[in-house]
Amino acid sequence: MSAIEGTGKPSLSTEAEIISKFLEPLTLGKDWAHGLRDDAACITPRTGHDLVLTKDALVAGVHFFADDDPRDIAAKALGVNVSDLVAKAAHPIAYLMALALPGDPLDGWLERFCSGFADAQSRWGGALIGGDLVATPGPLTISITAIGEVASGRMVQRGAGRPGDKVYVTGTIGDAALGLMLRRDPGSALAQDLDQDVREFLLDRYLRPDPPIGLIDILREYASAALDVSDGLAIDFARMCAGADCGGRIAVADIPLSDAARACVASRLIDLVGLICGGDDYEVLAAVPNNRSAAFEAAASSAGVALACIGELAPADEGVAFIAADGAKLDLGRGGYDHF
Amino acid sequence: MSAIEGTGKPSLSTEAEIISKFLEPLTLGKDWAHGLRDDAACITPRTGHDLVLTKDALVAGVHFFADDDPRDIAAKALGVNVSDLVAKAAHPIAYLMALALPGDPLDGWLERFCSGFADAQSRWGGALIGGDLVATPGPLTISITAIGEVASGRMVQRGAGRPGDKVYVTGTIGDAALGLMLRRDPGSALAQDLDQDVREFLLDRYLRPDPPIGLIDILREYASAALDVSDGLAIDFARMCAGADCGGRIAVADIPLSDAARACVASRLIDLVGLICGGDDYEVLAAVPNNRSAAFEAAASSAGVALACIGELAPADEGVAFIAADGAKLDLGRGGYDHF
Repeated sequence: MSAIEGTGKPSLSTEAEIISKFLEPLTLGKDWAHGLRDDAACITPRTGHDLVLTKDALVAGVHFFADDDPRDIAAKALGVNVSDLVAKAAHPIAYLMALALPGDPLDGWLERFCSGFADAQSRWGGALIGGDLVATPGPLTISITAIGEVASGRMVQRGAGRPGDKVYVTGTIGDAALGLMLRRDPGSALAQDLDQDVREFLLDRYLRPDPPIGLIDILREYASAALDVSDGLAIDFARMCAGADCGGRIAVADIPLSDAARACVASRLIDLVGLICGGDDYEVLAAVPNNRSAAFEAAASSAGVALACIGELAPADEGVAFIAADGAKLDLGRGGYDHF
Repeated sequence: MSAIEGTGKPSLSTEAEIISKFLEPLTLGKDWAHGLRDDAACITPRTGHDLVLTKDALVAGVHFFADDDPRDIAAKALGVNVSDLVAKAAHPIAYLMALALPGDPLDGWLERFCSGFADAQSRWGGALIGGDLVATPGPLTISITAIGEVASGRMVQRGAGRPGDKVYVTGTIGDAALGLMLRRDPGSALAQDLDQDVREFLLDRYLRPDPPIGLIDILREYASAALDVSDGLAIDFARMCAGADCGGRIAVADIPLSDAARACVASRLIDLVGLICGGDDYEVLAAVPNNRSAAFEAAASSAGVALACIGELAPADEGVAFIAADGAKLDLGRGGYDHF
């Protein structure tokens, strides 16, 4: 389409060059992409499968730092979308990307950005099949539509849990919230107090989401409900409960924490509420019927996916609560689910 | 995900309200959308069909005017995507939308914006099935992924034409380029010289794309190649030829012009090159094998789709040319295909 003033796209030669030099290799030669030389992609769905589609947008200065390593920006942009697919038990098969660029980007930046996508998609599956390049007077904005595949009717929904279901979370919670604090203020007390390797671990957890791909088929087999933990365990657990019209309890002592996060809590650099209400974990929160929980745990263990049982769903009249070790209900304040 | 400073989304209560009050009605209750209350949409593809996916992003101040009627912004955002689907012979079935909002929007604006989508999707088909709402310090940015359906293997490609194929275009060309001139500079000589109804016609052609939905099945049946005319007939015809590795000739006198555009050319407010190189037509450019052209024309006529035969594809060594009435090759300058 035409720009109303100046240019609505990077210059045409730049656009053609970006596509052929940087983006086309990300298609891995997949037919669906038509070499990014048509106006649309074309997916031939496998018989007996549904397509799961998710769309998360990221804005420089809002969802990532404009001066983050472009490889990390790419990994995060794809990772947050793949994280949604994983929680729905869908295998990533393809993605489309609209890039709004605040000027003709430097080759070096684009090369690193696209190599970030190449690495990420080789780790998680899928390939680029289409998208759009536009110019913006605003910040770099990346909108990705990721497409996954699941056996027909088997997408795991957010709100299909039942009272009595056990609640599980993968990995560890709260590291990314600490990583964001470090990234935001590298001169903070937090940063001064931590060893270099601990800082690097936490930053990595914030900058480079690593959704538990190994859990996809296991979720499809055992989970009654699931979503990814992206806005904080507190809010995302409340969403799981609200979707199912039920209540639920999380035992705070059972929430898996990394050694680094435990050390930060011990040093009072953050409290448990901060970890629970922080976002960007990109772990999976799942509900599993009680009589399937042992098999679920065994399957996850075989697949090498770290998993912790942290609570259970309950009847609606019991409400939604995070229970501390002393039996008291944790006050989650503004970061919690109360203001839903 | 977390915002790095301040908020990465409209306030949570605002987000929930926008979804339930304005966006959820656009799902038309379709199962695929899960009421926009899950992290992903789930499409069950019809057996024997491919899914066609296209993704166009629009930025305020670049692709539309920030003070355009929000109903028009919506119609354009969906229209430019539907236009791609139509040219690929795919019926629109669903779309996802990521909205990057420069602040909590006013209810009145959102209401008009969403009623624009409601009207557009009822005209063209499909429903909202998912998306994302984020905050941006930059301009309003709308990224849509539109999904269409076509019988397996029957997507009409941009670059599958053959020398000898007749070349057709729907509707009229260049009105939107004039409409953009009027929208950009309402006090211009152009605006002063035209009657009110002519101005309104041209503005409407720019602001409200109207892709020829009635041609979808006919394209699938008869076209060897097609794309929508979005960046200007000159460039888009060059793309059709380049994709097929062939040449082609357009007879400029056969390019369909509206009475309004003819009057503007007669008054020297614009020349033919301006019409041919202007964008935003959102008509279909199609190639049809010679022996199928009569049937194609008859089918389009029965469907009430205005269509003109404007040229033909040719061997590569004949090059790509727009031929004026006097037999001379039109010089398309910078707006043409020469700088591809």
